Amino acid sequence: MRAEIITIGDELLIGQVVDTNSAWMAQKLNEQGIELYQITSVHDDREHIIAALNEAFNRADIVLTTGGLGPTKDDITKHVLCEYFGAHLIEDQRVRAHIEDLYKDRPDVLNRLTATQWLVPDNAEILENRVGSAPLMIFHKEDKLLACMPGVPYEMKIAMEEQILPYLHSSFHPFIHSSIYHRTLQVTGIAESTLAILLDEFENKMPSGLHLAYLPKDGVIRLRLSSYGELSEAEMARYFAELKALVQDYLIAETDEPLEVIVGRLLTERHQTIATAESCTGGKLASLLNKHAGSSAFYYGSVISYDNSVKEHILGVPAEMIEKHGVVSEEVVRVMAESVRRLLGTDYAIATSGIAGPTGGSEAKPVGTVWMAWATPEGTTAECFHLGKLREQITDRACLKALVGMIKLLNR
Amino acid sequence: MRAEIITIGDELLIGQVVDTNSAWMAQKLNEQGIELYQITSVHDDREHIIAALNEAFNRADIVLTTGGLGPTKDDITKHVLCEYFGAHLIEDQRVRAHIEDLYKDRPDVLNRLTATQWLVPDNAEILENRVGSAPLMIFHKEDKLLACMPGVPYEMKIAMEEQILPYLHSSFHPFIHSSIYHRTLQVTGIAESTLAILLDEFENKMPSGLHLAYLPKDGVIRLRLSSYGELSEAEMARYFAELKALVQDYLIAETDEPLEVIVGRLLTERHQTIATAESCTGGKLASLLNKHAGSSAFYYGSVISYDNSVKEHILGVPAEMIEKHGVVSEEVVRVMAESVRRLLGTDYAIATSGIAGPTGGSEAKPVGTVWMAWATPEGTTAECFHLGKLREQITDRACLKALVGMIKLLNR
Repeated sequence: MRAEIITIGDELLIGQVVDTNSAWMAQKLNEQGIELYQITSVHDDREHIIAALNEAFNRADIVLTTGGLGPTKDDITKHVLCEYFGAHLIEDQRVRAHIEDLYKDRPDVLNRLTATQWLVPDNAEILENRVGSAPLMIFHKEDKLLACMPGVPYEMKIAMEEQILPYLHSSFHPFIHSSIYHRTLQVTGIAESTLAILLDEFENKMPSGLHLAYLPKDGVIRLRLSSYGELSEAEMARYFAELKALVQDYLIAETDEPLEVIVGRLLTERHQTIATAESCTGGKLASLLNKHAGSSAFYYGSVISYDNSVKEHILGVPAEMIEKHGVVSEEVVRVMAESVRRLLGTDYAIATSGIAGPTGGSEAKPVGTVWMAWATPEGTTAECFHLGKLREQITDRACLKALVGMIKLLNR
Repeated sequence: MRAEIITIGDELLIGQVVDTNSAWMAQKLNEQGIELYQITSVHDDREHIIAALNEAFNRADIVLTTGGLGPTKDDITKHVLCEYFGAHLIEDQRVRAHIEDLYKDRPDVLNRLTATQWLVPDNAEILENRVGSAPLMIFHKEDKLLACMPGVPYEMKIAMEEQILPYLHSSFHPFIHSSIYHRTLQVTGIAESTLAILLDEFENKMPSGLHLAYLPKDGVIRLRLSSYGELSEAEMARYFAELKALVQDYLIAETDEPLEVIVGRLLTERHQTIATAESCTGGKLASLLNKHAGSSAFYYGSVISYDNSVKEHILGVPAEMIEKHGVVSEEVVRVMAESVRRLLGTDYAIATSGIAGPTGGSEAKPVGTVWMAWATPEGTTAECFHLGKLREQITDRACLKALVGMIKLLNR
């Protein structure tokens, strides 16, 4: 069973919005055993949308669209779909009641434009969009199907989880092979090409239905084994175990979970807690650590000491130490980590201080130099990294290094 | 002059990676006066890549590809392009010297797989990839052109800025109409449909070459006027001024800059500084404020008080106050904002405390309730928001509300 996604909106093609929807939808489809063949982003343009629909229906059984369902003139998806499927718009009383309820405290929103949202194509099935005014529409084309959703990410997510995925499951259940497997290992401390040579023999003897992919990013390589229905779960597990044994020396995770989730899980299991003292990462590490539900079990807080005065007055880094060693130094990050651990009363603390650029670098400490310390109940360790030249890359990589270091300490 | 992007990689279609490249490339192309017609994401699969190339060349003059250029077996883009353009791989001495220099301190990386990276198609122009081992390739097909780049975002960005965009400019200069205009206003405090009714007359009298788009997100609507070569700069400016006058009451920005950039610019102009005290936003607001270069001029630091003990011990929120009013309350955020402003010695401070969920909500304070305070030299204001039901949505919206509030205070 094959699906395609068409994302509709000029904003995607002028770069005003990053399409985060497609990756999320792709994950969900794969989990359901539905292979996603292609993602296509098109303009809010009648001919363009129709051409994309024709092409997608030639290749796939299921077409999912997002975007272009607002009440304003620039949004034309519903009208184009009416034309494509030979439908007329009719008023839907259930949708109307829902929208009137949705905006019952905001009478100004119940205006003539919003009223166009309860006009729906007469040959589409209408599913409930619990959190928005754009109706979810299902169209049929012979034995194929189109599901049309809004582009606002959280509306799309609720629509997919509560309506579209259950609908696809009940419609296509007998045809979906539920044996798409993706399993991922995360390794660090080895170059991609060196890793590939290490795995050469393994790759050469893999059966044809098994695929190995290398996804390097910021010093961590995600190594993904995939099978689209050809292998049994047991065979997949056997190859995965073999792969894991081969990369054991570099392994930091046996799942595709984000590293901060792994840190959180390890800490929660041990009833331990963590804090951060961040300079160059400026809160990015803190917000990773509390990004996911359940973080209050292990994450206490942080002191973001972007300005040196904060390092001195709150974290108690002596001014003379900064004067002597510089603010990006082993001495300073050690004090930062130990201070925040003590101040916040946590088991662990991570501190970062570096030069994120574009200015502030020197010959001895160029842009990209980052000192990092991990304070633990058993003492403090520190390490210096050189993390590239671009501001965002440096801070992203610093967060990754901080988390990798923490995972290693917790797994020790 | 029309371009298309083809992003190549199974990881995009199983949702393991979000395609952030395309939006960035789209912006750059538009700035150069090159219209981006479509973005297509395809598998690491010979037939799929060839089909996508054929379709893209049918529609566009310039095709840009990213991804599939690593040295491992799963990356096949170079081989498929050789087949497509009838090329053979030959060793390129310049690329070889570059790669040998790139890894001069890491002899293990100079292995037989890395050596495949200096094999290049004999009919392609090779441009320098300053920061990686995959060569940038330009192929010609009649009067059309394909540029092939790696998928690692920072490599792609450097390739585009230093090599591909200048190449496109010099190749197509006489054919590029430099008058693509996009201008954006940001408004808040009005529903999308109400705004559209307010602008009905304006939209009806717009010339056919002018387009108005509504991009609502988290309570802010970006209102974009676009023209692809039909209008002069003066005409564009006139319509933009007219639009601005119509939405004056709701206007928070006259550019498409992220709100944190606007806050940073306003503060820097005034030589003023800011700090944050964050509970539910957990560092996200801090990391927004220092995301961009130049932030050390106005951003001092933050106290992330995820756990109540941090609110009490560092920010001096009295335990009785938390006991009496709850941690998500006007009283508490006021103390948080004023404390962090005083502690860090800044002109302004923003504090957040809310229930990001999924647990922790009550009837009186459901998930999504967020109290926020802005401490200023003229006193402190506070406001309560209800920001939805999903954790990420709540914290994103809270940051946006914090920044909108700050912009309003600074523009007062």
